[in-house]
Amino acid sequence: MTAYDSLVEHLKETQLVGSINSLLGWDERTKLPKGGGAYRAEQMTYVSGLLHKMRTDPRVGDWLAEAEQQVGEQDPHSDQATVLREARRSFDKLTKLPQDLVENITRAEVEGQQAWVDARAADDFPAFAPYLKRIIELKRQQAEAIGYDDCIYDALMDDFEPGEKTSNVRSVLEGLREDLVPLVEAISESANRPDTSILTRSYPASAQESFGTMAAAAIGFDFERGRLDVTHHPFCTEMGPDDTRITTRYDEHFFPMAFFGILHEAGHGIYDQGLRGDHYGTGPGEYLSLGFHESQSRMWENQVGRSLPFWTHMYSKAQDNFDSLQAVALSDFYFAINNVQPSLIRVEADEVTYNLHIIIRFELEQAFMSGDVSVEDLPGAWSEKYQHYLGITPPNDADGVMQDIHWSAGLIGYFPTYSLGNLYAAQLFDKADEELGGLHQQFERGEFQPLKDWLVEKIHKPGRCYSASELIERVTGNPLSHSHLVDYLYGKLGPLYGIERP
Amino acid sequence: MTAYDSLVEHLKETQLVGSINSLLGWDERTKLPKGGGAYRAEQMTYVSGLLHKMRTDPRVGDWLAEAEQQVGEQDPHSDQATVLREARRSFDKLTKLPQDLVENITRAEVEGQQAWVDARAADDFPAFAPYLKRIIELKRQQAEAIGYDDCIYDALMDDFEPGEKTSNVRSVLEGLREDLVPLVEAISESANRPDTSILTRSYPASAQESFGTMAAAAIGFDFERGRLDVTHHPFCTEMGPDDTRITTRYDEHFFPMAFFGILHEAGHGIYDQGLRGDHYGTGPGEYLSLGFHESQSRMWENQVGRSLPFWTHMYSKAQDNFDSLQAVALSDFYFAINNVQPSLIRVEADEVTYNLHIIIRFELEQAFMSGDVSVEDLPGAWSEKYQHYLGITPPNDADGVMQDIHWSAGLIGYFPTYSLGNLYAAQLFDKADEELGGLHQQFERGEFQPLKDWLVEKIHKPGRCYSASELIERVTGNPLSHSHLVDYLYGKLGPLYGIERP
Repeated sequence: MTAYDSLVEHLKETQLVGSINSLLGWDERTKLPKGGGAYRAEQMTYVSGLLHKMRTDPRVGDWLAEAEQQVGEQDPHSDQATVLREARRSFDKLTKLPQDLVENITRAEVEGQQAWVDARAADDFPAFAPYLKRIIELKRQQAEAIGYDDCIYDALMDDFEPGEKTSNVRSVLEGLREDLVPLVEAISESANRPDTSILTRSYPASAQESFGTMAAAAIGFDFERGRLDVTHHPFCTEMGPDDTRITTRYDEHFFPMAFFGILHEAGHGIYDQGLRGDHYGTGPGEYLSLGFHESQSRMWENQVGRSLPFWTHMYSKAQDNFDSLQAVALSDFYFAINNVQPSLIRVEADEVTYNLHIIIRFELEQAFMSGDVSVEDLPGAWSEKYQHYLGITPPNDADGVMQDIHWSAGLIGYFPTYSLGNLYAAQLFDKADEELGGLHQQFERGEFQPLKDWLVEKIHKPGRCYSASELIERVTGNPLSHSHLVDYLYGKLGPLYGIERP
Repeated sequence: MTAYDSLVEHLKETQLVGSINSLLGWDERTKLPKGGGAYRAEQMTYVSGLLHKMRTDPRVGDWLAEAEQQVGEQDPHSDQATVLREARRSFDKLTKLPQDLVENITRAEVEGQQAWVDARAADDFPAFAPYLKRIIELKRQQAEAIGYDDCIYDALMDDFEPGEKTSNVRSVLEGLREDLVPLVEAISESANRPDTSILTRSYPASAQESFGTMAAAAIGFDFERGRLDVTHHPFCTEMGPDDTRITTRYDEHFFPMAFFGILHEAGHGIYDQGLRGDHYGTGPGEYLSLGFHESQSRMWENQVGRSLPFWTHMYSKAQDNFDSLQAVALSDFYFAINNVQPSLIRVEADEVTYNLHIIIRFELEQAFMSGDVSVEDLPGAWSEKYQHYLGITPPNDADGVMQDIHWSAGLIGYFPTYSLGNLYAAQLFDKADEELGGLHQQFERGEFQPLKDWLVEKIHKPGRCYSASELIERVTGNPLSHSHLVDYLYGKLGPLYGIERP
């Protein structure tokens, strides 16, 4: 067996163990009896340890060095080059970090999350501040150990958006912010308002489940290779090339949460199901980045699921399922699900303001990583930006700077991937629309397969053979730009709110 | 760390890996999407391999030898002695078998099951015969490699009923048979017949689920440390000291299947939940034998769940749940769920005839293992015994000698544990009734906790500190006897069928 073959075999075996951990995690979050928690933690710790040992096995370094030499120069986008590049990337990242730093980070994250839960409940940011400082300091050490070209934030973002540059993301998100702030202002000043009480009537969970399942299947989530379950915090996970599981939660008096949540997770799931199973566990069979993953969920949730053509096809089925909709006109329902309103909480935000929530976090993360803003000054900086971009001021820190779990869990550099997802989604959708000739007419006829097939071919099958910036340019002909998302938002919201693009 | 401590740590780690395999298996049988089957097989093969490596790790032999010497003479029923005895037993069994024999057996079992499925569907016993011969031959080799004192069947039964002797089981089951055959004849000749059509009316699955869940909780299955799911072939499994999962299937036009199935599996589950969690993975925390496990499921299913006092308490709740029972008298319902009728298929048999199905298999297994009956002659011998003991003759081999999966899967020596379960259940129930003073009155008041607590204390907590024959004698004061079961059956069925004990 060549070094390359040995490496691939080891990577696949590692993925097998990782997939078992996925099952343990999925079961923990969907099925585990309350009493089983302590032993489940032992099981997951054991498998995580095994996984770490496999990933940092010194033989991986030997096989890599030998295979890189044997293979030599070749097309960097080939499967083989991608296997080696991604294996090298992962191995170097894991082995560059000193063991004591890894342990310190793990401990700081565990303690940070506990402290965050308590501090948030007590609305006591100063109690959380020392933990956040410690995490920031350790993340700096991590970034220095890994290394970076331009700025320290690059090294952190790289964990989630491989190869992406802060300068690039900053320029795109600044452009987006400059266009969104006036859009939000214009909507706030508009006299048009949807009747959102439509959405808070009675929506029985079982009807939501069957309607949501039908819709997920309609857009292309394969239930022969996946399933839908109930959980507290919805997610999508996979535990094998043909086993992708999505979750949701039902509020019987709020229709959008579960329905758009299901479309969102189904979008993630369709991406996982579209990856090449024969490369499962290696770069060519792996999702490209969190931003690209999010682009798939957002496209099905928003560009498709909140579009008028989608509901032109689906609305009579919805009325069959829900008594609460029987006397509601499609146009009123459509406006209600596209309501835009500045609000405090990111996870409850609409399509427009959501990105401003993200931009605020992205700007603050850079500021506290570079030292421009101290942890003590974070609540003030947070409030200032919320007032500036969204026109609202958080009444407290619990619903302000402490609303997200991310920082307490060491996830710094993660937030921008959400907006990158929206941006990729808009740009890809425009290209698909151009190439497939009228997606909206297809949606009106209930035809979602062409878009799904296009995404599988253009985005899912390449895996990591191209970087995110390479792939968006390869598929759409242009580098990432904020204009597609802004065009899309004006195109949809302009008529609803009676506003025109400045 | 002493050799003993190292051994215990290793045993617990091995159990941890085994419990992960349990989750993989539970999920496969209850949740796995169809497409996920192939990869799941890879996951389970990997974990099984890891498990085998851990169980046969040569260090186990070293630790055992050292610990046995260090510990020396001690109370054989102490936890420490039990840890060592059971670890020795398991290690010796696994390491005594030559690797090629293990592989041959595994292959013969896989091929045997495939051949059995096809041969059964085609009602073609001769097509299955060569596979069965091969399995019998390999099982003989296995028994010789493991060793035995009296007869070869001892070595096979020992896998399921540790330490049990064929001669002992034979004498008890012969006594049982001699009493059951006239009982079945008397019932067949009785003019009394229940109206079983009561049970085949409409019983919606969701109502069955909530009623069954309520009943399982009422008898003591702890849903904080367990759950109930749907599957094709019901089972109970545990994947941690506080995570026991039972399963059932619903037939909307046959009430008894799911309901008594749930009580049965809950009985298994209550046993698993009653084991001492701090000894999880070692002998003192392990179930004693399959016969004892079955005694727990049968007692809750039959002695409790098919008793009149149980339904005196439960029947109005059942009527609230099921429209089909609203005009049915309790006495008619009670007779219907205790219908006795000789039938062809073991898994559909009633409490009385079930044991005759088992005795036939037990007798035939001994006969083909010793060579007294050839595989070719099995169908004839089968029919003869069915006619003799049950008064019926199978119309074909598919519903005769080929109805069970066991032999094709190499499970020879397993069947008697089912009847041992019934016998232990009856004998234990009588003792509990005597010590707790009137279980039936307690059931009428919906009090099941005293019986459960008694079983936890007497049967569950000792784990494997006593052998099955030691424990039954220790708890009841007498060795296993068939008279308790026969008394119980006459006591219940005599009044229903208007018959008296000869």
